[in-house]
This record gives sequence, C-alpha cells and structure tokens, in this order.
Amino acid sequence: MKLNGNYSKLFENYLFAEVSDRAAKYQSAHPDKKILRLGIGDVTLPLADEVIKAMHLAVDEMSKKESFRGYGPYEGYGFLRESIKNYYKTFGVELNLNDIFVSDGAKSDLGNILDIFSNDNTVLVPDPVYPVYADTNIMAGRKIIFTNANEENGFLPMPEKVVKADIIYICSPNNPTGAAYSKEQLKEWVNYANSQGSIILYDAAYECFVKDDSLARSIFEVEGAKSCAIEFCSFSKIAGFTGTRCGYTVIPEELEKGGISLNKMWLRRQSTKFNGVPYIVQKGAEAVFSERGMAQIQQNLDYYRQNAKIIAECLDGLKIRYTGGKNSPYIWLKCPMGMGSWEFFDYLLNGAQVVGTPGEGFGENGKGFFRLTAFGSREVTQEAVLRIKNLLNNSN
Amino acid sequence: MKLNGNYSKLFENYLFAEVSDRAAKYQSAHPDKKILRLGIGDVTLPLADEVIKAMHLAVDEMSKKESFRGYGPYEGYGFLRESIKNYYKTFGVELNLNDIFVSDGAKSDLGNILDIFSNDNTVLVPDPVYPVYADTNIMAGRKIIFTNANEENGFLPMPEKVVKADIIYICSPNNPTGAAYSKEQLKEWVNYANSQGSIILYDAAYECFVKDDSLARSIFEVEGAKSCAIEFCSFSKIAGFTGTRCGYTVIPEELEKGGISLNKMWLRRQSTKFNGVPYIVQKGAEAVFSERGMAQIQQNLDYYRQNAKIIAECLDGLKIRYTGGKNSPYIWLKCPMGMGSWEFFDYLLNGAQVVGTPGEGFGENGKGFFRLTAFGSREVTQEAVLRIKNLLNNSN
Repeated sequence: MKLNGNYSKLFENYLFAEVSDRAAKYQSAHPDKKILRLGIGDVTLPLADEVIKAMHLAVDEMSKKESFRGYGPYEGYGFLRESIKNYYKTFGVELNLNDIFVSDGAKSDLGNILDIFSNDNTVLVPDPVYPVYADTNIMAGRKIIFTNANEENGFLPMPEKVVKADIIYICSPNNPTGAAYSKEQLKEWVNYANSQGSIILYDAAYECFVKDDSLARSIFEVEGAKSCAIEFCSFSKIAGFTGTRCGYTVIPEELEKGGISLNKMWLRRQSTKFNGVPYIVQKGAEAVFSERGMAQIQQNLDYYRQNAKIIAECLDGLKIRYTGGKNSPYIWLKCPMGMGSWEFFDYLLNGAQVVGTPGEGFGENGKGFFRLTAFGSREVTQEAVLRIKNLLNNSN
Repeated sequence: MKLNGNYSKLFENYLFAEVSDRAAKYQSAHPDKKILRLGIGDVTLPLADEVIKAMHLAVDEMSKKESFRGYGPYEGYGFLRESIKNYYKTFGVELNLNDIFVSDGAKSDLGNILDIFSNDNTVLVPDPVYPVYADTNIMAGRKIIFTNANEENGFLPMPEKVVKADIIYICSPNNPTGAAYSKEQLKEWVNYANSQGSIILYDAAYECFVKDDSLARSIFEVEGAKSCAIEFCSFSKIAGFTGTRCGYTVIPEELEKGGISLNKMWLRRQSTKFNGVPYIVQKGAEAVFSERGMAQIQQNLDYYRQNAKIIAECLDGLKIRYTGGKNSPYIWLKCPMGMGSWEFFDYLLNGAQVVGTPGEGFGENGKGFFRLTAFGSREVTQEAVLRIKNLLNNSN
C-alpha cells in the first residue's frame, strides 16, 4: 500500500494550527496573562435573531414524524438556493437555480472542486494568499506557479499573457491583504481565462464587506465570466456561520470544456462523496436573506467595519503602512522596524499578548507583513490596539 | 485545462438518482397512485427527544455572545469524541481520543480518505456493495479488483492469499446484502491485511443493528486491527441523522506505514479541506450517547427491526429466498420468477407502486437480486408487504 507521497511536500504545520500552537505554549508558560486574538478570521458576534428563530423551528420540525427530514438534495434545498439566487439579483447577477450548490463551507468546496480536474494542470496562485489553494494542489501533485501580489501592484496582480495557466485562483476581497479587484480589473482576468481556455476559481467569501460600487461582489458581474469561472461563497463571514457551517458554490450550467459540463461533473462528485448540509443549518441560512435577517446582519457587518477602522487609525497613528480595512475585514500591515513576520508575531505575543497572523504564512511576498482581523469583539479590538500602541511607542 | 478523464468511466447515473428518477417518471404519468418507498436507506422516525433538547440548547448558545461558538476543532469537539470513546467501551474496544475524527457522515469520509493514498494502489471491493467504494476509486483512476459475494459464500467473501490488494473495503453488516461477519471471519481479514501490508477501510455504518454477540460491532474488536484498519461510522442509522449529518472515523494513532502516521495525514487533510461539523449537530450527536438518549434510540431501532421482520415473514410466505433482516436493516432477496433486478424494479413499481433498489446497481453479483429496507414507517411497510403479496400471488 502506497501513501500519497505529495503530503510530504507540505509544510509541517497548517498555518493556523502553528499560530494557535505558539499561543497555547505562551499561555501555559504565562497562565496569568490574557491573550487577545486578532489572528484567525473567526467571528465573535452571535447568530442573528432571525437565524436563531429559523433554526429552532427547524429543530422542532425534526422532532415530529410529519415534518422530519431525512436525506436532502445533494445540491441543497430549493428554498435556500432560491434565496441565494435572489441575493445575487441584488447586485445584478442572474443565476439559474441549477447553477447553485449548497455546501458545508467555501473551504471544503475550494478543496474538493479539484476532484473534477486532471492532476496534469498548471495552477496559478497569487502570493500571498489563503494557504488552502496551494496546499490542496500540492496534495494532488499539480504544478503550481505563483503570481506576485506586492506593494508595487497594490497586492492586485494582473494577468500576464506570457504566463500559461489552466486553473487560476482569485480571492477578492483578498485574504490576507484586504485588497479588492474592480470590475474592470476582473474583466481582464476573465478575458485572459477565456482566451487561454482556463478556469478561474473565484473565492468570494468576503464579498459582503464590499461597499464601493466599482468593486465586484461576484465575478459573474463581469461579462464572459460564465464561460470560465466557478465562484465560492460562504455564510461564515456574512452571518457568523464559522461554527454553523454553510456555504455555496456557483457553477454556471453553461460552463463546459470540450462538450463536458463542469456543473454535471460537480453534481456527480457531490452525489458520490457528499450527502448535503444539515436541514437545520439550511433553514438558518435561508433566514439570513429574509428582510429582517438582512437588516440584523448589516448591523453585525457594521460592527466589524468599525473594528477595522479602530485598527486602521491605530496604525495611522504609529505610521505603519497597511492595505485593507475598507471593503474587507482584514488589515494587512508592514511589520515595523524591519521585523520578519514570525518575529513580529512573537514580539506582539510576548510584548502585548496580541495574536495576529504572520504574513509569510501566506506566501513569499508576505514576508515582513502581518494580518490583523476586524472580527474580534469591540472590547478585545480596543484593548489590543491600546497594547500595540504602548508596546510600539515604548520601543521607539 | 484538462478535466479529470476518469469521470467518463463512471456510469451515467448514480444508482439512487436513477431509482428516484424512474419513480418520479412513474408518478408524473400516474398522479393518482401512491408510491411506497422501501428503496433508499433513509430513516422515517423523527429525532429522539434528547437529541432535540440538546439541539435547542445549542441553538440558544449560538444566540448569545458569551456562549457563541465559531470555528470548532477540525477533528470534532472533545465532548463528542469522549462520548464516542465511551460508546466503544460498551463493546469492549479501547480507543484514544486522538483516534477519533468527527465528520459530516461516513459517506464523505469514505470518499475523502482516499486523498491520503497514492492513486497507484490496487483496491479490493466486494461485489455487490455500496457503489461509493468503487465510484470514488474510479474517479481517482485506481485499479479495482472485485471479490465475489454470492449465495455460495453467504455473501461474505473471505480473503484469498493469491489476491494482492493494497486497500480493502469491508462493510459489515453489509449494504446491500444484510450479511454480517463474525469476529472469527474478520480476524482472517485482519491477518491477511497485516501480512500483505494492506489497509482495510471498514464501514461500520450499520453496527447498531448487530444483536448477535458472535458478530462484530467494530473491526477493532479483533486483535491486530489497529495496525491495518480504519473504521467509518455514522449517526444516520443509529439515530436518524440522515438529514442532520454527523459521523465519525477512527484511525488508530498507531496505524502507520513506513514510519508515516495515517492519523496525522488525515488530520492534515481535514485541517486543509474541512472546517468541522456544526456545533449544534455535535451537541445533538452527543445526546445520542446519554442514558436517556440511548434508551429512546433503542426503541427506534426496535421499530425498524420489527419492520424487517414483517418484510421477512412476507418473503417466507411467498417462498422467496433472502439474506439479512436480522442484525441488519436490509433484506436482500432473490428476484422471483427469474426476473432481472431492474425488471423486478419496474414490475414492483408498475404492479404494486413499491420502490426498492435493484441489486445489480450494487454490482455484477447483484444481478437478479433486490434490496428492501426496514427504514420505512410501519404503515408503509405493512401496506407495501400487502401489495407485494397480492401482486405475486396473482401472478402465480
């Protein structure tokens, strides 16, 4: 029996596991210190009332024979897919119901979608980026090439005709840099993909933070995207579903290569390796899109936006350069005093008991950068900002 | 961009999709007829009261900032893994907490586990069997060899030394045949795997139906299994979680090949491509193992066992040969009058409006066989049995 040898090419630790490991070690050595976490992109506000109500009702349905639900459709219940379709309409995108697949989160589908592609493809991944894109392709043994996202291009790399790539990852608003593509910029990527016959895997997990109308909420706002793109989205950030687990993937029915429908391949994959998302969770997710649900959720998003502003103002005061914080829950900063990413991580952990995420965990171009998130509670964010100010002002 | 060409080697339709498709076509042509479904292995009893209570409490926790849960551990919450560990103790199996991974269902993990194995392995799959084992390996391009499960061996094939296999699937109690291995028989498989350096993927999804003490509930009841086996189990059948989605996978920490821990590889896979099971669902699953939960669940299992008995008695009366029905929710019968599987499917659908599952959908050796399940409601089971009796008695 042979194991998948590609796993040995992965780094020892998954980034966030390493971060929480170091924090745990610090905590056990200093049990009296209170660690403030602005590292992993986890939310802190509870679920919206409408979601809670819907889930209680769904639990009750599961308690009675007449309303009990067994196996659901592999692609998700019609009621939820209908709501997602209507949500897309609010930013001008028309989808078919069959384009939409409900999932247990964007992360699962971003990894699992690779099942439908040959391992003999070249993958273009921006650097820095969410580690899952590269790691899942390393596991499958695909050739990966990186495109540089750096200060020069505002962390928004554009296509280069000389680069040949079969599968292209785009995350906008970006994790970790907070940078977001305009519709015009995305149009260039769509044209590039269509001209090369490539597929764009578009991670829209942070679309709900986009306020600026010139920026894209969905790649399908761009003409031509339906013949080259698959979009992944999640309820994690819009509605605090990080521990409730729901997302969706949009594969246009018209997306095909050599006469083979990618939508049908994905349905085959899901019906073979997946059994759908809990009914209770799908009912909760549906409530996100109700009028009241949306109003409650916008309040939560505004709360996180205010956190981002607090962090940004702190960095302004310290004259630290950063991107993001607007149209994004992430603040991507240049480590002060020429420090490396993990060096700054340890510096903040030891000196201020604040945990962030080292930029270099997201790629070579992340070296010397650091990610903070706006998903903490207001109190934690304010306290963290205070401690960072004190630490850095005293070290100057 | 190249698609995964292996998908073209799959049959057009996933078995259960084809079954429901034919049933739907019949229904739309005969809108006045009431179809009775004893086909797919879906449960019909609602969730147990203790599970419902636990889920309501968990929903409430998600509504308050102090008790809200975001991302959980990739491998599942400690409280649930502890309960599973204690459950295994009741049939004499000692596990470490780290051996246990909570999943969204056995089907997902049975497919996804293949990520950690090279595509260059030979896979041994019993025929007939749950289609997911073969389909997931066809998708990856692995070489598959089949071992015959038939009337001669009581649908329980035993290892043959001349057959070299790297990955071995065993499902006991078996889907679709209802046959279950004794501990002595499993010991032969474990010895075979250990001597060949193979891995057994053991599907224990129906273990809760085992009443006979000589039969295995877990492969880890057999000495030597921890160095060659991975076990998959599910809350779907024990607790009616088909639409609630929870399962678990046991990979002993000591299971390794060439010094590489399969347990660690799986954790790496899960932390990269999965984000855990909903907190609410894990709380519901925990309640299954409470004293009251277990008592309620045993009542449900007895209800299904009684259904199996009703079906078995009907077949006895009609002098139709079958296996299963004891220690299993499945009844695997030989199609009467020399009919083929799909022929009998259409015969029952047209003549009695009863939907079962054609045996040949599970493999070559399933030709001429048919699967009925005990998961229907009592009323549906009784009515279906009556219709089958009438149809077959009138045709004699």
